[in-house]
Amino acid sequence: MAQNIYDDAKFFEGYSQFPRSRDGLAAAAEWPSLRSMLPDLTGKRVLDLGCGFGYFAQWAVENGAAEVVGLDLSENMLAVARQNCAGMPVRFERADLETADFGSGEYDLVFSSLAVHYVADFDSFCARVRRALRPGGHFVFSMEHPVFAARANPEFMTDAEGYMVGAVNDYLREGKRLTNWIADGVVKYHRLISTTINALQDVGLQLDHVDEWSATDADIADHPEWEKERYQPMFLLFATSVTSSLPNRT
Amino acid sequence: MAQNIYDDAKFFEGYSQFPRSRDGLAAAAEWPSLRSMLPDLTGKRVLDLGCGFGYFAQWAVENGAAEVVGLDLSENMLAVARQNCAGMPVRFERADLETADFGSGEYDLVFSSLAVHYVADFDSFCARVRRALRPGGHFVFSMEHPVFAARANPEFMTDAEGYMVGAVNDYLREGKRLTNWIADGVVKYHRLISTTINALQDVGLQLDHVDEWSATDADIADHPEWEKERYQPMFLLFATSVTSSLPNRT
Repeated sequence: MAQNIYDDAKFFEGYSQFPRSRDGLAAAAEWPSLRSMLPDLTGKRVLDLGCGFGYFAQWAVENGAAEVVGLDLSENMLAVARQNCAGMPVRFERADLETADFGSGEYDLVFSSLAVHYVADFDSFCARVRRALRPGGHFVFSMEHPVFAARANPEFMTDAEGYMVGAVNDYLREGKRLTNWIADGVVKYHRLISTTINALQDVGLQLDHVDEWSATDADIADHPEWEKERYQPMFLLFATSVTSSLPNRT
Repeated sequence: MAQNIYDDAKFFEGYSQFPRSRDGLAAAAEWPSLRSMLPDLTGKRVLDLGCGFGYFAQWAVENGAAEVVGLDLSENMLAVARQNCAGMPVRFERADLETADFGSGEYDLVFSSLAVHYVADFDSFCARVRRALRPGGHFVFSMEHPVFAARANPEFMTDAEGYMVGAVNDYLREGKRLTNWIADGVVKYHRLISTTINALQDVGLQLDHVDEWSATDADIADHPEWEKERYQPMFLLFATSVTSSLPNRT
């Protein structure tokens, strides 16, 4: 079973203070890019893996989705999500993304924001996502960028010429990382971009677009604290779709 | 016109001392991975972009290719390539990869080893590669890994805990880099992985496999000097093919 750090009281309190926790999608730097990679949701069935506070489920319904199912391991988050989407055609369920059955041929869109780096077995995860999708369906997701996630505790250093550089190590060593982020000992998994892409291809999810998010001048004018995001990539976004030329492996 | 650094006498002398220059493909660390991504060459027409000393052209003919065309900007390299492939169905021509016309629907495989980071306009390059390919054709290539190429002069540093880390900066700032490699002021171009992939997709080259090459234990036993390749990725390899569902845009 995956670590349920979001139900750790101290972690949850810290996480709840983040701008994106308080203010939703509008406070997430990468959201405009991710949104631009989504298909039209009118009348569609949507599965949100790692749904957190339910902000995406809410947005999906407001943008035409017929029904949204949100899965998360954290009871804390599900309780808030249910409040945020009260009265909407949204169902939230507790599930471990590591092992849960996502159903078969039920969804037009599977969405996941910053959750797959908590999943140890990405091959199994992709196979279950693929199985959950209808023909022509889409899987759109974001993850921590591997250049950022490779180092358990990312940091910046100053080189011999006084230039700020990102410290990257063990990029090529995949696997578990214990990171101190809000609380100590948060478990996440580092995977190469190539491993991620090949796993998607292997289950018949074709890559439509990739984005290594970076802060624009306008972003940095609004958020001076994002200056470092000019140098090191923090988010990696993928849009994929079920390849019609491959057999439906449900 | 692209910089022709390989015809700089000092650079060429230095480059000629490299193991891969003296001993060919067998001395190139990433070659086994790249080879595994190639289609069967029996009876095929092959275009090698940035053919260097002609080692791949020679290998392709020895592995069944009917005909190979090798293009390079360096007269120095073409002279050696012609010697290496004397008597073989191989033609070498001087060409600037930045602007050359690669022909239309002529090749089953376009191959390129560690050359595309010298190309400024990758969109134009991809369009010309796509046009050169027959339906069902393949484009297989290697490039410097962007994590490595982002920093003009890559280096390793020691962090506060004495741990070796790679210094990465300006990963998100694409464009020209002046690097001191063999000679000073070698011009190359840094592009994100995402930019590279999206450019391929945009011309109808579908991604079949990606490899971020890393040294294995066996590699490091044979080549202790590759130890750093465990940490920082140096090579990025792509296998792509013409998507049959897209119009042939020749």
